Amino acid sequence: MSDEKTLRSLEIRSTVRRDHTLELTLETIPVPRPEADEVVVRVEASPINPSDLGLLFGPADLSTARASGTQSAPIVTADIPSGLMKTVEGRVDQSLAVGNEGAGVVVRAGADDSAQALLGKTVGMIGGGMYARYRRLKAAMCLPLLDGTTPAEGASCFVNPLTALGMVETMRRDGHTALVHTAAASNLGHMLNRVCAKDGVALVNIVRRPEQAELLRGMTAKYVCDSSAPSFMEDLTELLAVTGATLAFDAIGGGELAGRILTCMEASANRNAGGYSRYGSTTHKQVYIYGGLDRSPTVVDRNFGMAWGIGGWLLTPFLQKIGFEAGQALRERVAAEIRTTFASDYAGEISLAGALQLDAIAEYAKLATGRKYLINPNKDM
Amino acid sequence: MSDEKTLRSLEIRSTVRRDHTLELTLETIPVPRPEADEVVVRVEASPINPSDLGLLFGPADLSTARASGTQSAPIVTADIPSGLMKTVEGRVDQSLAVGNEGAGVVVRAGADDSAQALLGKTVGMIGGGMYARYRRLKAAMCLPLLDGTTPAEGASCFVNPLTALGMVETMRRDGHTALVHTAAASNLGHMLNRVCAKDGVALVNIVRRPEQAELLRGMTAKYVCDSSAPSFMEDLTELLAVTGATLAFDAIGGGELAGRILTCMEASANRNAGGYSRYGSTTHKQVYIYGGLDRSPTVVDRNFGMAWGIGGWLLTPFLQKIGFEAGQALRERVAAEIRTTFASDYAGEISLAGALQLDAIAEYAKLATGRKYLINPNKDM
Repeated sequence: MSDEKTLRSLEIRSTVRRDHTLELTLETIPVPRPEADEVVVRVEASPINPSDLGLLFGPADLSTARASGTQSAPIVTADIPSGLMKTVEGRVDQSLAVGNEGAGVVVRAGADDSAQALLGKTVGMIGGGMYARYRRLKAAMCLPLLDGTTPAEGASCFVNPLTALGMVETMRRDGHTALVHTAAASNLGHMLNRVCAKDGVALVNIVRRPEQAELLRGMTAKYVCDSSAPSFMEDLTELLAVTGATLAFDAIGGGELAGRILTCMEASANRNAGGYSRYGSTTHKQVYIYGGLDRSPTVVDRNFGMAWGIGGWLLTPFLQKIGFEAGQALRERVAAEIRTTFASDYAGEISLAGALQLDAIAEYAKLATGRKYLINPNKDM
Repeated sequence: MSDEKTLRSLEIRSTVRRDHTLELTLETIPVPRPEADEVVVRVEASPINPSDLGLLFGPADLSTARASGTQSAPIVTADIPSGLMKTVEGRVDQSLAVGNEGAGVVVRAGADDSAQALLGKTVGMIGGGMYARYRRLKAAMCLPLLDGTTPAEGASCFVNPLTALGMVETMRRDGHTALVHTAAASNLGHMLNRVCAKDGVALVNIVRRPEQAELLRGMTAKYVCDSSAPSFMEDLTELLAVTGATLAFDAIGGGELAGRILTCMEASANRNAGGYSRYGSTTHKQVYIYGGLDRSPTVVDRNFGMAWGIGGWLLTPFLQKIGFEAGQALRERVAAEIRTTFASDYAGEISLAGALQLDAIAEYAKLATGRKYLINPNKDM
């Protein structure tokens, strides 16, 4: 392979500067030849997920974003509020590649059988640095897509699908029998509804606006309540009593919602409880916070007994905990159902340079309501 | 045994009335003869623990407490703020016996060998209703004290000793290697220091006043910090870095302390971490709230990554989880070390009627700073 010409990749980089700015650039980088257990993938599609925005933008104030550079080599600069610099001390002056997942075609492969077997195949990938024309990575980090699946269809086959499956799997492993999900109108929320419908798991969807509730009901979601309704606490308690859900996944994080869910779970648990216990019900009630749409503090009014927990939940540690084989079963299910259960909708397809246009940023940076874009790194402006 | 004369017990009862009052009384009750697997214990000592006060006083406002009845049959009445009545709906008009633990002499026993073996023995007891002259209970709920141990010495052999041991045991089972304890100047805090010193477990003591820090240091506590000090966050981070503690037990519950502990644990974990991770350290950081000295909401500023948890912790579910044999090993250790590691200090000994005097209540109801009293039910006024 030493006679192959060196591939050159173009990739999005994010750098925090000591002068309290964040800089987004496009860099041209030579792609080293793959090691024996590696492949090089020509990336053809990579989504901009909410989970990508933290690395991409850091704590920068995007209302200060300004453009420079050229149309094909744009530079975006935005200010970081000085009080937040300490949260990114560890990445100052490091040019970081971005993009958690993507899909493409394997164009070069190392000597190992596992790598050679992928040559020419369309694969999904996880591992960062996907906003790039080429990505070199371990063959083991690739998920071969079924014949006929396009890179655009397979671009989001890790983060949202495995998160949805991880929630259901966590429910089963921790002994719960139904789920609650907040910010349920999201792309992930739609997917979780399809997974739960298919698996026969009761899912209580909490949304923040009446029109989102209508939308979900129109998609045949059975249990939906709106946290902006005056009757929210009663509505949620009723749905918890009907479903028996004692586990919630919360994408919002800040404010009182997580605690209110525990309060309603306790009220549901006590509906049929006999006798008084000053320590509350013995039913364990759990909320996992997996996102931070609201970055304000979590405020928990502890009026739900002592059998409760709130904690962080992340996909990667979850997959590490369940081990490779259990994780592989989840990944294979995603590949098999990528056009149905795990299909993603996109607002549109943009190029690498297009992703650094200020108008595009203004759209996809809206965590709560932004539409999901697909980057096609081989598309021109 | 049918020819034995019926024993009559005198016991403290707590009743929530529908008219938004709480009433404490002394009731005279016949003691039924024990079933085959039961014994009757003449209670000689029972502590007033912080964990007894919830059942004893409910949410009553003790500044409204007034006395009636007679000196030997006192009645105490206090108002319950109307907004809090819903928290005690389940106990309205129920005359509830009080007192989690105690010690005494077995005076009657059922036919089973396990019950007969206890006759005449001095035992520690758990199970509620201990503020009474006699307590009938399962033989299995009794812990035989070693010869020479007095009831006063054995009165507190369950709640605080098993809680302290439960904290250390939880630390080991959850894979942590050192502990943090808040409100560490408490009776339980002293005991936990003795357990950790004996077991070689590093314990970070958080107190709320400088004089408490001095007191603990005087008792050879090695790691102490004061949450009222301006340098608290730095002090705590330093002690966490030295000890590697990633598990805290918090008696306070409300306010920002639990979240601050997680923040300092994260800072400690990141001291030697290489590279930047937007999800924070992968070290799991846990705070268990086991008390509620501050009943205000828990406020958590989530600036410590995603590997964290906050939850309730109670002794009884913990003992159920570890099973009888593991629990029995803990109980036997308590019996063996009741005069040393698990010794309790008391402010004084009072009678049942004495415990219902307004001046005594004003003293022992102070959760944070109140001195611990021992009730001797067979003592006269």
